Amino acid sequence: MEKVPEKMDSEVPQYFGKGGRLKKSPHPALIASAYEHECSDTPILLEHLHDADIAHGIALIEAGVVPSPHDKALLKGLLDLKAIPESEFPLRPELGDLYNSKDTFLREKIGDVAGWIHCGRPRREALNLAFVLATRARFLELANAHAALARTFLNAAEKFKQVYMTDFTYMHPAHPTSLGHYLMTFLFPILRDFERLQRYFEKLNRCCAGSGSSNGSALPFKRQRIAELLGFESVSTHTRDSMWQPDVPIEGMTVLNCLTMNLSRLGEEFQIWTTPPYSLVDFDDGLFRASVIMPQKRNPYPMAYVRGLTGWLSGQMASFTALGKTYSGNPDSRIFIYGDLPRATEKTIQAVTLFDAILSTMKPDSDAMQANVDRSFGEATELAEALMRTNGVDYRITHQIVGAIAAQLAEGGLSKSDISPELIAEISTNIVGTPVQIDKTLLSKALDTKSIVESRTETGGAAPVEVQRMIDEAATELDQVQRWIKAQEDRITAANARFEEACKGITS
Amino acid sequence: MEKVPEKMDSEVPQYFGKGGRLKKSPHPALIASAYEHECSDTPILLEHLHDADIAHGIALIEAGVVPSPHDKALLKGLLDLKAIPESEFPLRPELGDLYNSKDTFLREKIGDVAGWIHCGRPRREALNLAFVLATRARFLELANAHAALARTFLNAAEKFKQVYMTDFTYMHPAHPTSLGHYLMTFLFPILRDFERLQRYFEKLNRCCAGSGSSNGSALPFKRQRIAELLGFESVSTHTRDSMWQPDVPIEGMTVLNCLTMNLSRLGEEFQIWTTPPYSLVDFDDGLFRASVIMPQKRNPYPMAYVRGLTGWLSGQMASFTALGKTYSGNPDSRIFIYGDLPRATEKTIQAVTLFDAILSTMKPDSDAMQANVDRSFGEATELAEALMRTNGVDYRITHQIVGAIAAQLAEGGLSKSDISPELIAEISTNIVGTPVQIDKTLLSKALDTKSIVESRTETGGAAPVEVQRMIDEAATELDQVQRWIKAQEDRITAANARFEEACKGITS
Amino acid sequence: MEKVPEKMDSEVPQYFGKGGRLKKSPHPALIASAYEHECSDTPILLEHLHDADIAHGIALIEAGVVPSPHDKALLKGLLDLKAIPESEFPLRPELGDLYNSKDTFLREKIGDVAGWIHCGRPRREALNLAFVLATRARFLELANAHAALARTFLNAAEKFKQVYMTDFTYMHPAHPTSLGHYLMTFLFPILRDFERLQRYFEKLNRCCAGSGSSNGSALPFKRQRIAELLGFESVSTHTRDSMWQPDVPIEGMTVLNCLTMNLSRLGEEFQIWTTPPYSLVDFDDGLFRASVIMPQKRNPYPMAYVRGLTGWLSGQMASFTALGKTYSGNPDSRIFIYGDLPRATEKTIQAVTLFDAILSTMKPDSDAMQANVDRSFGEATELAEALMRTNGVDYRITHQIVGAIAAQLAEGGLSKSDISPELIAEISTNIVGTPVQIDKTLLSKALDTKSIVESRTETGGAAPVEVQRMIDEAATELDQVQRWIKAQEDRITAANARFEEACKGITS
Amino acid sequence: MEKVPEKMDSEVPQYFGKGGRLKKSPHPALIASAYEHECSDTPILLEHLHDADIAHGIALIEAGVVPSPHDKALLKGLLDLKAIPESEFPLRPELGDLYNSKDTFLREKIGDVAGWIHCGRPRREALNLAFVLATRARFLELANAHAALARTFLNAAEKFKQVYMTDFTYMHPAHPTSLGHYLMTFLFPILRDFERLQRYFEKLNRCCAGSGSSNGSALPFKRQRIAELLGFESVSTHTRDSMWQPDVPIEGMTVLNCLTMNLSRLGEEFQIWTTPPYSLVDFDDGLFRASVIMPQKRNPYPMAYVRGLTGWLSGQMASFTALGKTYSGNPDSRIFIYGDLPRATEKTIQAVTLFDAILSTMKPDSDAMQANVDRSFGEATELAEALMRTNGVDYRITHQIVGAIAAQLAEGGLSKSDISPELIAEISTNIVGTPVQIDKTLLSKALDTKSIVESRTETGGAAPVEVQRMIDEAATELDQVQRWIKAQEDRITAANARFEEACKGITS
Repeated sequence: MEKVPEKMDSEVPQYFGKGGRLKKSPHPALIASAYEHECSDTPILLEHLHDADIAHGIALIEAGVVPSPHDKALLKGLLDLKAIPESEFPLRPELGDLYNSKDTFLREKIGDVAGWIHCGRPRREALNLAFVLATRARFLELANAHAALARTFLNAAEKFKQVYMTDFTYMHPAHPTSLGHYLMTFLFPILRDFERLQRYFEKLNRCCAGSGSSNGSALPFKRQRIAELLGFESVSTHTRDSMWQPDVPIEGMTVLNCLTMNLSRLGEEFQIWTTPPYSLVDFDDGLFRASVIMPQKRNPYPMAYVRGLTGWLSGQMASFTALGKTYSGNPDSRIFIYGDLPRATEKTIQAVTLFDAILSTMKPDSDAMQANVDRSFGEATELAEALMRTNGVDYRITHQIVGAIAAQLAEGGLSKSDISPELIAEISTNIVGTPVQIDKTLLSKALDTKSIVESRTETGGAAPVEVQRMIDEAATELDQVQRWIKAQEDRITAANARFEEACKGITS
Repeated sequence: MEKVPEKMDSEVPQYFGKGGRLKKSPHPALIASAYEHECSDTPILLEHLHDADIAHGIALIEAGVVPSPHDKALLKGLLDLKAIPESEFPLRPELGDLYNSKDTFLREKIGDVAGWIHCGRPRREALNLAFVLATRARFLELANAHAALARTFLNAAEKFKQVYMTDFTYMHPAHPTSLGHYLMTFLFPILRDFERLQRYFEKLNRCCAGSGSSNGSALPFKRQRIAELLGFESVSTHTRDSMWQPDVPIEGMTVLNCLTMNLSRLGEEFQIWTTPPYSLVDFDDGLFRASVIMPQKRNPYPMAYVRGLTGWLSGQMASFTALGKTYSGNPDSRIFIYGDLPRATEKTIQAVTLFDAILSTMKPDSDAMQANVDRSFGEATELAEALMRTNGVDYRITHQIVGAIAAQLAEGGLSKSDISPELIAEISTNIVGTPVQIDKTLLSKALDTKSIVESRTETGGAAPVEVQRMIDEAATELDQVQRWIKAQEDRITAANARFEEACKGITS
Repeated sequence: MEKVPEKMDSEVPQYFGKGGRLKKSPHPALIASAYEHECSDTPILLEHLHDADIAHGIALIEAGVVPSPHDKALLKGLLDLKAIPESEFPLRPELGDLYNSKDTFLREKIGDVAGWIHCGRPRREALNLAFVLATRARFLELANAHAALARTFLNAAEKFKQVYMTDFTYMHPAHPTSLGHYLMTFLFPILRDFERLQRYFEKLNRCCAGSGSSNGSALPFKRQRIAELLGFESVSTHTRDSMWQPDVPIEGMTVLNCLTMNLSRLGEEFQIWTTPPYSLVDFDDGLFRASVIMPQKRNPYPMAYVRGLTGWLSGQMASFTALGKTYSGNPDSRIFIYGDLPRATEKTIQAVTLFDAILSTMKPDSDAMQANVDRSFGEATELAEALMRTNGVDYRITHQIVGAIAAQLAEGGLSKSDISPELIAEISTNIVGTPVQIDKTLLSKALDTKSIVESRTETGGAAPVEVQRMIDEAATELDQVQRWIKAQEDRITAANARFEEACKGITS
Repeated sequence: MEKVPEKMDSEVPQYFGKGGRLKKSPHPALIASAYEHECSDTPILLEHLHDADIAHGIALIEAGVVPSPHDKALLKGLLDLKAIPESEFPLRPELGDLYNSKDTFLREKIGDVAGWIHCGRPRREALNLAFVLATRARFLELANAHAALARTFLNAAEKFKQVYMTDFTYMHPAHPTSLGHYLMTFLFPILRDFERLQRYFEKLNRCCAGSGSSNGSALPFKRQRIAELLGFESVSTHTRDSMWQPDVPIEGMTVLNCLTMNLSRLGEEFQIWTTPPYSLVDFDDGLFRASVIMPQKRNPYPMAYVRGLTGWLSGQMASFTALGKTYSGNPDSRIFIYGDLPRATEKTIQAVTLFDAILSTMKPDSDAMQANVDRSFGEATELAEALMRTNGVDYRITHQIVGAIAAQLAEGGLSKSDISPELIAEISTNIVGTPVQIDKTLLSKALDTKSIVESRTETGGAAPVEVQRMIDEAATELDQVQRWIKAQEDRITAANARFEEACKGITS
């Protein structure tokens, strides 16, 4: 029975399943829609489908499921297919998805032996594995890119921890701060990104192979073996759960959304900061784009891209949460997430690298920053607190006094240098009926940006010494992250060696 | 000054803008992210960018902006580029987006004359036009596919208007109805789809060309001329609005979401109806997919695809609404919608065609439908109303009486044939203390599915005669839709002729 | 049989359905979740549920379905309940949703006669009607508020059509324009808002009453009569479709999303324009909020609110599209949209009114605008076009020349007043090897903001005369919108009179 | 200066900030929109705002910032306000948000002393703390409810681990399994829910107090002290980050989305399983709802609610991701998430409890399950594998043979009892030209559901022994979760004691 009789070839065409339960080939409308769609994910999935197939083949062979000499023929066939560049791989949507194209192609190469690869494993497991492997590779790459960006943040924060500026809320000038402290605002979410990424990665690291679709398999091959060959940390527990998890992809998408949102926020500020009235910072000329019609333009296009990507990922998330809402055991979401999550991860990696370029080349304009400090009245809180403490009067009252001064400054009737103990006494008398006192030295200190910033030494404050402490703390945490990345890469490298050895063992 | 001196070529590299306001070429990180992303929309945009460029060129030339002999050379160059297949078009992300790649390519072909095409028009206008043309073509195709599907619905409704079944709410049996009436549930949303599609299309039909980016142009070419050449109905009004509209793409995405949601709902029901316990309908064998591991399976895969697409489009919508939230005059959303809306439209067209195949090949199983009628007690409302009307007793009471009968039927203590005037009298006595009466003839009529359905002759009811009236009404509406489609196609065809004539006039 | 025997009251508690098909009252966990949730929409639905019930009652009575003297008693009971303020209406989640609470309450007031109201109509129809009436009322209010805002835009545009400024793209200075032209950017989306709102409103205006849940009703009352009493334009066509439409609420939500997004965009710009480095505009002091800690702050809080609302509505839309994805005939989405759409509409109305306050009180600072014009080089396009036309040289070259000047301006080596024919000749010689010429008069005109703006007289351009033409055109369109609003209000007023007359006719 | 002179009271009205930087009270349109909106979150925030204020007051007092006797008066005032029931708390949107209402109310009670509470702390910190405390309380409650549901799953799985049925994919019959194994599909995502919930909770446990808005504070109070008083684990690190984190609320919403999606899926299946053609399970009568018009109906309404909630949460997520996309330091998202996240958590808790009721009262119908097994051919995979292994023929071929049998079974030409070695030999001869052999004993075992299920003993398989092992493993994990919950509750209880002690120390 080694050969299917000749006539069979014409009777049983290559569409998997036809001639058994199904009598017909796929409907043209199905080919042009769903099958074309599934095939379009080939650039992402193929490489990993090869590995999933080969690992499954090894496990079957080692367990004695595939009889000799079919075992060697099967594995050799699978390895030959893997050697074909993705761009030359024959995709035939008329036969179904990538799985079916590959099945037919393998059979054309090695004949009926190809049929052994299908035993003990549903299409879903093969594709899930390919998807997880594709996602895992990209998330490791993302971790590396993001760690590099985190370093850039730490370097910039250290470099600019004594470049003073006003903070912003509502984009209006707030307290005095330093550019270094300001940048660290965006570094701490990155540390949380890593925590989320690692937790998600743990879930990617549980191998669903050998689940037999939903209830397990009675074939004697071992789930653990496939997990080892593919560099997973462990096998997943429940066979049906691990095949259809709706939550895990959402968690992955959450990682991407949180990560880009943080960059989008700073990017949006950078964009405003580059406009002529601000001009607080500038970036590498290669990060601007010319206008076709307006010769004077130097558009901060990368900021628009990062912000656009963030909005787009918001939609990808909504797609994932909407897709999951169905009964279980349905491929509704799978058909879309296989390509969408790896692709979204790729775009995120690129955006991280782009942001790294932005931040690395950022040049602050200290003069413009000082001008903005001068034009603002960020010292108001310090002054109101000083008045409160020296006069024993409550904050609402000193808030009102200083607010009245701020109003006069804004309206142009006053300039900062006019603020004197006498003026304060006068204004406070007008407002509360008695003069509020402050001596000249204290007043001068309360109006000094540098002195204010240096006084913020409590945990998380803007004082250069505390900023440095945070940088050091974060650097330590980042070291751990990078060790973790290394450990993941090492485990995969070790598995790859094991994988190749197993192949050799069988084929030689 | 006809030739730029030789040395210029090396000094001013091809990146548009470099050597003027910008001193450097794009940063590698920008190329690998945003420019790669923008270039990836080329298969959608290129063909239409050619037309947008040529129409702009014609308008400039006719207005005397481009001096002879540059006019002829420019247009010939543009036409030559259009003749190159998209797959052979040299994309160079290192130069920026598609616009920049084309600019450089044109210059390589025709030299500095290429520079005339950039006057009076921003990149945004060129790409917006390409995007609108790409979208317009797809929405017309969608209209055609959807009209075909609507016809299939009408045909099926007519064919099955006397195939009786129980309606469903909560997937539990509800009133008696016909399959024809049931299918018409999904036809009326399709008519609303057309209304939405047409309103959106009207907005696509206002041409933004000649807006000069935001404030208009002082060059003497005419906006109306470009609009005519490209088959638009009119020029848009406000130049800045027409360049950055955030609402119109959302409206387009709404069309797609509403359309697929309607199909997803019926598709989900069809899926359940094909499961063995229901088996109410079957479809063409070519619309099922085999399982790789389970030989008995015949999976209704197209339903999962349609449902998945619907969830995916929900996310695309969320992407569009999130993207629009920024200040105006920013390309954040543009960078993403140029490809996403045309692609989403293509997928929707395919899904509509797929659904047409599903519905066209649907075979109801009348026996299974009758079995479901028998197993249900869909006649309960009719019976309770009959008891109410003949006894003058309020509906809560007859509802309770019939509900009690239904409970006994469900628990198996009773079968439908046991329902008699005597039984009703007995049960009602137990419940309300007095017997509720009904004569045998009326009872028998109240329990007859066919008779119940035929009595629903009010507007929108299930009676075959009313279903036929609705079909006729809808068919008339559909005729109008198809005439509208034809008119759109004719206007575009006429414009294409005008376009070619103008080209000939200049180049010959 | 007019009275249910005493013992029944204890045996058959008030939970609708219990004692018939159901044997038990609702589970506490159901009460605490879904029933509490549904009851929480009472402030929105109750008033309109009263009207839906009364109209149904009138139709039943007029058709002779409810025998005398129950008819009068029933209608009187319904009217008495309507007279009770919503805050005093007894809600009992332990009995189910609002419908059930009202049922029980009515029965407590008028006894078993209450049971007649349930005939021929499902809960869904009653609630759908209440929902549609609640939504209709709010959308009319929204139309009025939005029309007022549109007038404010027109007034402001007219007032400021000669206040010159630079336009912005990427928030960087673009072409010269006027504040009036700029504001009109946001008026045209408002006109599209009205078109969308009216189309949606048409769909709200088709009455689903009398659908008998899904297949129509055999009771002799007329669907048209209920539609008239409630001020609908017509009856809906298909009974089942009109009960469960998934698309129409999405269309309503689209109206809200598009509308707020437009305002969010301008609001975001206004926020930036109020920051000290810009200071282009100011608003009423009552539209700012003080900081609790920072006395100098005057936060543009309303802008944050409008932007926040826009993001929130993006989520409401995603909720609606996700909710619709289920099989038909299920209340999944209904349970949530009944409250969410009217509430979202209310918030939108408030935001529109808030934005009207913002815009009405806007004061531009002409000096700051002029300073921004001076600091920018928005005239660059005009100059490059002038060089192109007078020298017959292509736009890439003049773009490069003017770009080089722009670079020098930005770097501070040059000021605008240095731009002379000689300088241009010199720079162009450096770049293209030959001098590009321009005479002094033309140069001076090309650098004059006012003159540039006044030259933009093509459709949609920034010239004051064209801005005025657009204002007039838009005002005419707005007049039509307001006549349409009036016609809707009149139809509802007329229906209310008919409604009251019918009530009197029965109860007197 | 202890008293503000009388005339001041009229001149400086109660709107915080007025009379200083601001000259006017809030605009009516601002009150009716944003301030009404913010005040509407009072039922969620007030209780926790009291605690945040009191803890801030204690820290100020302990650090000597508030001079005696103001310290005692201030704290007593704060405690008195806390004692007022939320329903009686005077909300005045005309004064701004809840913070402002409380400020004014406190001042009315204790005079100017009230002004001390505002020092060293922005509104944002106070509200953020209230929000985090409100969210923390609800997530702990959610953890408890979810743990109870997890126990119910374990109990049900244990009870039904030998109730055999067919599994489903595409809702079509798949492999043989047990109800216990099937239910465990949904337990493992719950374990992942706990992991996510705990990670999110950790982030809630870092206290932002003392951040001074963005750069820290120079006042001598300690951040650690406030953290201890409110039961936080630690202080947050970076002051500005901790005030505006956009990612953490998204992470919280992810927890809710993943959690409900899992329940929605099973709920959807339960709904289908209760329809008459399936009737595989039934639930407590109190979990169904009657139809108003159809007496026979017993609608699985809770399933629709859970599914609806899941869709609604999908939208809430999209709202959160859209809201975060802005520049940092803006309250856009805060204004909406303060109420939305706690409310969404409450609804999730209720849904979890509802689902617990559903699952606790589930009664499987073994007969119906067996009937479904009989009607299906779930044994097909086992048979095909048996033929493969005994004949040494590849799986494609045995798949085809068994598929052909399945087709005949489905078409009714065959019944399961007809499957014999002879039949298989005959069919296989037709297909592959040679007979495939199987002996009677093996065949009979391959067709026995119980035997198939019992053979699935690999990790995660359906064998009762493996199901029990998974139950035990999960129970251990659940024990740990519950210990973690206890530890959180204990820490908060201890903090509460510390809090009260500190209050007593100051006020007595």
